[in-house]
Amino acid sequence: MTGSWSEKAYTEAKLFGDVYQSASTKEGKYQSIPKLDELQYKKEDAYLHLTSNNTIYGTQWREFPDTGDVPLIADMSSDILSKPIDVSKFALIYAGAQKNLGPSGVTVVIIRKDFLELANTKIPTMLKYSTHAKNNSLYNTPPTFGIYMLGEVLNWARELGGLAAISELNKKKAKLIYDVIDTSGDFYVGHAEKDSRSLMNITFNLKTEALEKSFLDQAKREGFVGVNGHRSIGGCRVSAYNAVPIEACKAFSEFMVQFQKGNE
Amino acid sequence: MTGSWSEKAYTEAKLFGDVYQSASTKEGKYQSIPKLDELQYKKEDAYLHLTSNNTIYGTQWREFPDTGDVPLIADMSSDILSKPIDVSKFALIYAGAQKNLGPSGVTVVIIRKDFLELANTKIPTMLKYSTHAKNNSLYNTPPTFGIYMLGEVLNWARELGGLAAISELNKKKAKLIYDVIDTSGDFYVGHAEKDSRSLMNITFNLKTEALEKSFLDQAKREGFVGVNGHRSIGGCRVSAYNAVPIEACKAFSEFMVQFQKGNE
Repeated sequence: MTGSWSEKAYTEAKLFGDVYQSASTKEGKYQSIPKLDELQYKKEDAYLHLTSNNTIYGTQWREFPDTGDVPLIADMSSDILSKPIDVSKFALIYAGAQKNLGPSGVTVVIIRKDFLELANTKIPTMLKYSTHAKNNSLYNTPPTFGIYMLGEVLNWARELGGLAAISELNKKKAKLIYDVIDTSGDFYVGHAEKDSRSLMNITFNLKTEALEKSFLDQAKREGFVGVNGHRSIGGCRVSAYNAVPIEACKAFSEFMVQFQKGNE
Repeated sequence: MTGSWSEKAYTEAKLFGDVYQSASTKEGKYQSIPKLDELQYKKEDAYLHLTSNNTIYGTQWREFPDTGDVPLIADMSSDILSKPIDVSKFALIYAGAQKNLGPSGVTVVIIRKDFLELANTKIPTMLKYSTHAKNNSLYNTPPTFGIYMLGEVLNWARELGGLAAISELNKKKAKLIYDVIDTSGDFYVGHAEKDSRSLMNITFNLKTEALEKSFLDQAKREGFVGVNGHRSIGGCRVSAYNAVPIEACKAFSEFMVQFQKGNE
């Protein structure tokens, strides 16, 4: 349990079976990702589910557990295509396209064939992955425009140098912002613990709500939109998905430095 | 039961409850729509479901039953926005956008508020209409491009004169083709019975498979694409959804006449 998406997955699973929490960082306000050796699971478990990146809290799994015979499932909606992933660790990866892959309305699923066979059959046909696997993803009329755009994004990613190059770029982009936070002397306070920081969503607070409001207002005037944190936790959040160029991260980091100078 | 979409709805409903067929035209190769007075249902039924237009067989409900206390549900995927509909007859109307409304990947649902409350709750959250009603259709990240396009199509429909004007146009479009069929002296044979004919999908056969193949090949050469009938029944099918201009229907009707002259 690492945030609101894990909570939703947990609640949903309870509709269909017995569920327990393998680990949770909720008590620590979801500021971190569980340590791999803290994860609890039993070899008879149907699966272990995690959310690889937590958009609201700004945390991200840096490495994934080896769960052996227990199928590992990951919701990678918000960091797929941001770095190389060893898909062989997972029985199932699913990801909404709308962060790094393409327009909203498409979901990508990578599933191991043997895991397909184990699925609950008492669910609607459209929600069975086997339906889509058997029908080459054409059981229903698919969202053609979104799929076309996803193909274009994959071509773009290849031209950039593939996932290795994109991963390096994303590290540089996030570092520009985190470095300002870390050298601000607590003027900016990162929400996530350092070893759990997300390269996609950078969350931080300022000392007072008044100062935060002033920061957000000024950011907006300077053309940085959507810097407000998610309504559920407030504060500030900068998202640096693949489509965000490094120049934007550089400009924002400079704005943060300037704002601090004018408001200390 | 009026075709493959009804069959899918029937099979799906069986996953979650007891289902029976109120009426079926399967024995007649789905060439017709049941008469309203042939429909059987009991007042304790959860709902009665129909498919308003059958894309594969080329049939369409011309009028809808008054089912009283039994909630009436219609899949209107292939004829919504083609003519005025008295929505007050229905507890639930659902329609994939991809025929008359916009790009694939959006589904429109019109549901009576009291009917929302009666739904099975042991289904996934995303498939509960109440989830979307409560959240103003923003529970999930919606397919924004498709919704935007749907709005543009509605504006276009309004500019054309609304559903009354569109309905007149669709009648004229279909009549161009049906008139050729009806005056061809059995050179072309319509699949649907006359009083069940669809204005959206016009299905017909030629005398022999060889002649049909020749017809389809020549149609394709003349620029009429997709005239092949659905693979499940073969033959020919012309679709005249809202986006098809009357000029296209006129051109195809003239092609049909010319082809008959050259092949009698």
